[in-house]
Amino acid sequence: VSTESTLLATLRRLATHPAARGLADDVALLGDLVLTHDTLVEGVHYLAGDPPESVGWKLAAVNLSDLAAKGAEPVGALLSLTARGTDWEERFLRGLHEACESHGLPLLGGDTVALPAAAPRVLGLTALGRAGAIVPSRSGGCPGDRLWVAGTIGDSAAGLRALREDEGASGPLVEAYRRPQPLLALGQALAPLASAAMDVSDGLLLDATRMAEASGCGWRLDLSALPLSPAFRAECGTDRAARLFAATGGDDYALLLALPTELDPGLTLPKETSVNIACVGELTKNGVFQLADDLGPVPLPERLGYEHHSS
Amino acid sequence: VSTESTLLATLRRLATHPAARGLADDVALLGDLVLTHDTLVEGVHYLAGDPPESVGWKLAAVNLSDLAAKGAEPVGALLSLTARGTDWEERFLRGLHEACESHGLPLLGGDTVALPAAAPRVLGLTALGRAGAIVPSRSGGCPGDRLWVAGTIGDSAAGLRALREDEGASGPLVEAYRRPQPLLALGQALAPLASAAMDVSDGLLLDATRMAEASGCGWRLDLSALPLSPAFRAECGTDRAARLFAATGGDDYALLLALPTELDPGLTLPKETSVNIACVGELTKNGVFQLADDLGPVPLPERLGYEHHSS
Repeated sequence: VSTESTLLATLRRLATHPAARGLADDVALLGDLVLTHDTLVEGVHYLAGDPPESVGWKLAAVNLSDLAAKGAEPVGALLSLTARGTDWEERFLRGLHEACESHGLPLLGGDTVALPAAAPRVLGLTALGRAGAIVPSRSGGCPGDRLWVAGTIGDSAAGLRALREDEGASGPLVEAYRRPQPLLALGQALAPLASAAMDVSDGLLLDATRMAEASGCGWRLDLSALPLSPAFRAECGTDRAARLFAATGGDDYALLLALPTELDPGLTLPKETSVNIACVGELTKNGVFQLADDLGPVPLPERLGYEHHSS
Repeated sequence: VSTESTLLATLRRLATHPAARGLADDVALLGDLVLTHDTLVEGVHYLAGDPPESVGWKLAAVNLSDLAAKGAEPVGALLSLTARGTDWEERFLRGLHEACESHGLPLLGGDTVALPAAAPRVLGLTALGRAGAIVPSRSGGCPGDRLWVAGTIGDSAAGLRALREDEGASGPLVEAYRRPQPLLALGQALAPLASAAMDVSDGLLLDATRMAEASGCGWRLDLSALPLSPAFRAECGTDRAARLFAATGGDDYALLLALPTELDPGLTLPKETSVNIACVGELTKNGVFQLADDLGPVPLPERLGYEHHSS
């Protein structure tokens, strides 16, 4: 039986080209092109009842978020569309196009294939971006680097929870789940300064652990420093349970950046930016993961985030 | 209800960037990069009982064939792998890797996502190639251009038919179905000379019609000139029905080239090439499609090839 880790090990053994970056990153880097591919599966990455427009938006946004984390400028995309022949696809394309138009990602091609009637849709996008002079990987972090989060954490997970309780739920948290905003301008400003950078897609604790492990570090994270939106605070509160929920929720599409201690990203950001940026902790020496909040140390939850992969 | 044609019309309306070539081609062309994405669906593009190694091989080969038709040199690929957590995926990756290694296509990244237990697998690959100085599209053909086929036609369809009758079938026709050979060297030699070029993936009659329509032409094709392999001749014969079966079968991954009348590709091919190349007809003035064989005119079959798309 193939587990996630053996499958990834196999892929790493095959992907030996330097552009693959050892598959320790969310992107490949080929010359000055940043390449990424993300796939959404019906019932796994989105709810069958989600409006098709929002699924299209989300497919573009999750790929754009990978470009954002590397400071890349969108260049173009190829779509893999499975079609069951309903008007779902037309509405999906409308949302995809809206996100692409909003972020300067032209659709260049792809493939449209038929799907057996009852099969869940599988929707893939390959996005290409033009890299800046420096493209941070996941693995360049050093002990002592501060960990910063750009954007807010937990909104999407709270939105998904609301939808599971009531599929007619709406509001800013549901919007955050359905229509994440890739932080492209912010990534272009900050990624070149970062020792390591990635987007937070599977939960802050899980993604921070991935960055730390790729960098040969551990981390110290302060739950009380998490950037929480007003809507999240109103809906979920701000106690330890709420903050743990936010830190393990996933689908945030915030950016996680390891920045040298002396660097204050607030000073380098464009003035017109309205995105939160918060220091949530630091990278530490290998293998130590320490979570705390105002009340003291917090035991690590068993589940650090959302694992998309099979096991 | 969305039909194939309305979905394609929508996609064309969205893909206005020049690199998309109006989606009238199998690839996008971004600077000197040729980009293509092909997706295989279990039960649609391959049989659930096919050896996973051959599915991996085929996924790489069908994408490489698109690069071949444009005369491009392989650069790298991104994989979209849906995993159900069995050893199927490990075997699939072995075959994919073998094809990538054989043709110089390094795996650079991608995404691995979980799939609900009963869902058909959906496997996608984005392939990038470096273009030569001239990259023929589908749409550059002119009335009077001769239509040439490189490779043989019908083997794969005959192999699939044999597998449907007996899932233990084997031999060169089954191999042609399971392990198509992308004609990269031949494409690099001939594509720069062609007014129009594409690979034959969905049936010669259908793909020739697509080329002719994209070029504002019709075609005249001679069934008796079809390049048929010895194995196909032995298994299916060479009568009109066999030739119509070959010409509408699909999954050939031969190349279809429109070449100026005076050009004999046999003279420009590398001497060591062992691939058949045959003149099968010509492009004609708009809207006329004439099929013939030794016995005279042949009525166009209702089904010209294999339509992957839903309708």
